[in-house]
Amino acid sequence: MRFSINEVEYEHRIERVRKTLAKRRLDALYLTNGASMFYLTGYHFISTERPAALVIPVDGKIAFLGPSLEQEHVPLETRLIEEIKTYLDYPGERHPIKHFANFLEELGLAKKRIGSDSSSGAFGMWGYSGPKLAKELPEARFVDASDLIPKMRVIKSAAEIDLVRESAKWANLSVSLLQEYTAEGLWDANVALDASNETSLIMKRTLGFDYVPKRNVYAVSVGFRGQIGEMSAIPHSIATRRMIKRGDVVIAESGVDVGGYTCELERTMIVGKPSSKHKRYFEAMVKAQDAAFEAFKPGAKCSDVDKATVSAFKKAGLMDLVKHHTGHGLGLEVHEPPWLDIGNDEPLRTGMVVSCEPGIYEIGFAGFRHSDTILITEDGAEIITYYPRNLEELTIERRD
Amino acid sequence: MRFSINEVEYEHRIERVRKTLAKRRLDALYLTNGASMFYLTGYHFISTERPAALVIPVDGKIAFLGPSLEQEHVPLETRLIEEIKTYLDYPGERHPIKHFANFLEELGLAKKRIGSDSSSGAFGMWGYSGPKLAKELPEARFVDASDLIPKMRVIKSAAEIDLVRESAKWANLSVSLLQEYTAEGLWDANVALDASNETSLIMKRTLGFDYVPKRNVYAVSVGFRGQIGEMSAIPHSIATRRMIKRGDVVIAESGVDVGGYTCELERTMIVGKPSSKHKRYFEAMVKAQDAAFEAFKPGAKCSDVDKATVSAFKKAGLMDLVKHHTGHGLGLEVHEPPWLDIGNDEPLRTGMVVSCEPGIYEIGFAGFRHSDTILITEDGAEIITYYPRNLEELTIERRD
Repeated sequence: MRFSINEVEYEHRIERVRKTLAKRRLDALYLTNGASMFYLTGYHFISTERPAALVIPVDGKIAFLGPSLEQEHVPLETRLIEEIKTYLDYPGERHPIKHFANFLEELGLAKKRIGSDSSSGAFGMWGYSGPKLAKELPEARFVDASDLIPKMRVIKSAAEIDLVRESAKWANLSVSLLQEYTAEGLWDANVALDASNETSLIMKRTLGFDYVPKRNVYAVSVGFRGQIGEMSAIPHSIATRRMIKRGDVVIAESGVDVGGYTCELERTMIVGKPSSKHKRYFEAMVKAQDAAFEAFKPGAKCSDVDKATVSAFKKAGLMDLVKHHTGHGLGLEVHEPPWLDIGNDEPLRTGMVVSCEPGIYEIGFAGFRHSDTILITEDGAEIITYYPRNLEELTIERRD
Repeated sequence: MRFSINEVEYEHRIERVRKTLAKRRLDALYLTNGASMFYLTGYHFISTERPAALVIPVDGKIAFLGPSLEQEHVPLETRLIEEIKTYLDYPGERHPIKHFANFLEELGLAKKRIGSDSSSGAFGMWGYSGPKLAKELPEARFVDASDLIPKMRVIKSAAEIDLVRESAKWANLSVSLLQEYTAEGLWDANVALDASNETSLIMKRTLGFDYVPKRNVYAVSVGFRGQIGEMSAIPHSIATRRMIKRGDVVIAESGVDVGGYTCELERTMIVGKPSSKHKRYFEAMVKAQDAAFEAFKPGAKCSDVDKATVSAFKKAGLMDLVKHHTGHGLGLEVHEPPWLDIGNDEPLRTGMVVSCEPGIYEIGFAGFRHSDTILITEDGAEIITYYPRNLEELTIERRD
């Protein structure tokens, strides 16, 4: 199947997990994080209050433990899971975690050392409560292994990078359509849904029936998330009350699911003629991003990139307007390690994929942030997203 | 402000929290669950790897601890939070949880008994890792209070019920448009985005500028989530590869954010002329839902409702096709307590709002599930959602 990771690569990942388990003298891995489960199998499910886990023994069959509504879903998405053990529903006449204790016993793990990413045995969503798995299986030894899969996920393979690259193409189209559709007098949510819908349709027509989003209901999510006018100064705003008007700074964001992976592409745009203050802030932001691009050098640390943007904003006299660090890893989750943060002295490594998105925010005025997706290479970095970054091309003129 | 809970009600909720804290001999509540924080303040934020918490002392000011990008967002959404204490970003030169230990000290809580809904002090999203708050504040005593807010949330107030009722109107419109737009040869995702977009636009025009979704980027989310044809037999499918075709069973789902609350409305539809097998399964599902409606009686338990649908499916000889229980609480989260589950002997109580959605699923054929939103009343129950439930009105005929 195209537009997804192939089975051989999943097998290699599982082989690496088994080697690490052996090294740590663990008999099995017990995983509850959905993104990590997808990373190892290609199977994605909707995490709810219903406990679910992937069990990878050093020797023996890979098992999925979960609710019965996933029973037939698993084999549709992966052939790597060979055992599926389910309970009817949560909380049930008998609690799912008690079933899980039995399932682990059936898998021969009742008295073994099990690495886990959950201290309770469940992911714990939406009002879940229940006994701890370790208590239900007193002869097993549970060991924290929550670092194991995230450490693997931080370096992307060639196939993963290809998916992020494919994602970047469609993100580019989506932001292009979003910019084209944006105009004063419109609600940002409608412009966003139009551009998301149109891009999804073109994508489906272009890539054909093989293409389907793997971890998201919709292929494309492009929009402003409420970052319109003064609300663009609130980086995590949700929605706006009013229509787009002349003079608004708007921040566009796009993500596109290709094989479960996505790039991140964000652009600051101005509706109408930019003021001199708009220009000053916009240019300072672009310069800070340029400084970050320069800082992705062989041998550099994650913190060096953040320091480069801090230094650029200080030089511009705008450091007071900084509200977050320079970027984060991405791929399967919206944010994931590594963090481009002043406190993270981890070295940049070839195959890391990160966002680069220094921003400034003046309350009552506007926010300014572009985000590009960066691949760390042996020579430095490659900018995977490629939408125009300059003010001229990001100015939305009134249509007459 | 209309279309949201008013400040006085939030103050009442906080008063109740304080009384419960006093009863449990706790000096403060430390909350990390976003939905519960919204429930107490009307302030919603996007949960990420960045730790955030709401602190409600028995005496003293309500405080928000979180990343600096939320600093100015908080007062835009609520006046109830009087202290905002922030760190720049995660992981930072100093870990946010270490900042939180200081913040709690500044709030006079360093040596107090603190009820908490998190064993670590953080919500723990997206690759978060860090020290435990209890370790950083060794003289404080942390006590599990993860039940406190969920117990309050389970009974809805008159104002909350009004918001769910308003949500049901727009969900009805959205499913109506979805049904109208659905036709063979179309991709379900595009039909879904069209209906979501159109409903949002009509809603905004109708309710005016006061209306804004509070906890979701988009007002309306209506669609099939991949439940098309054979994939309708996978209740938690994500997306489909192929276009809608004649003979497909499709399951429509809608949620609409009004003041942060939503109803749940789902309908099974058939594209083209239903077969006798379609009819048999459809009628069995409707009968099971009728049986559940009957079971919402004063004095009944949550499990009684589930037993009623099990009994109806057994009578129809279709119990083998059941993959989940009858329903769940709803309001702020997609699923929340109480569970209409055979294992939950909790009594139904006036003011509970639950989904009622017995379903059957035959792999390779189709799934059948309607979901309605039910308010438990003194006399029994009121069905808040009102879209047609019969096969005739849910049959989508070819347009000539």
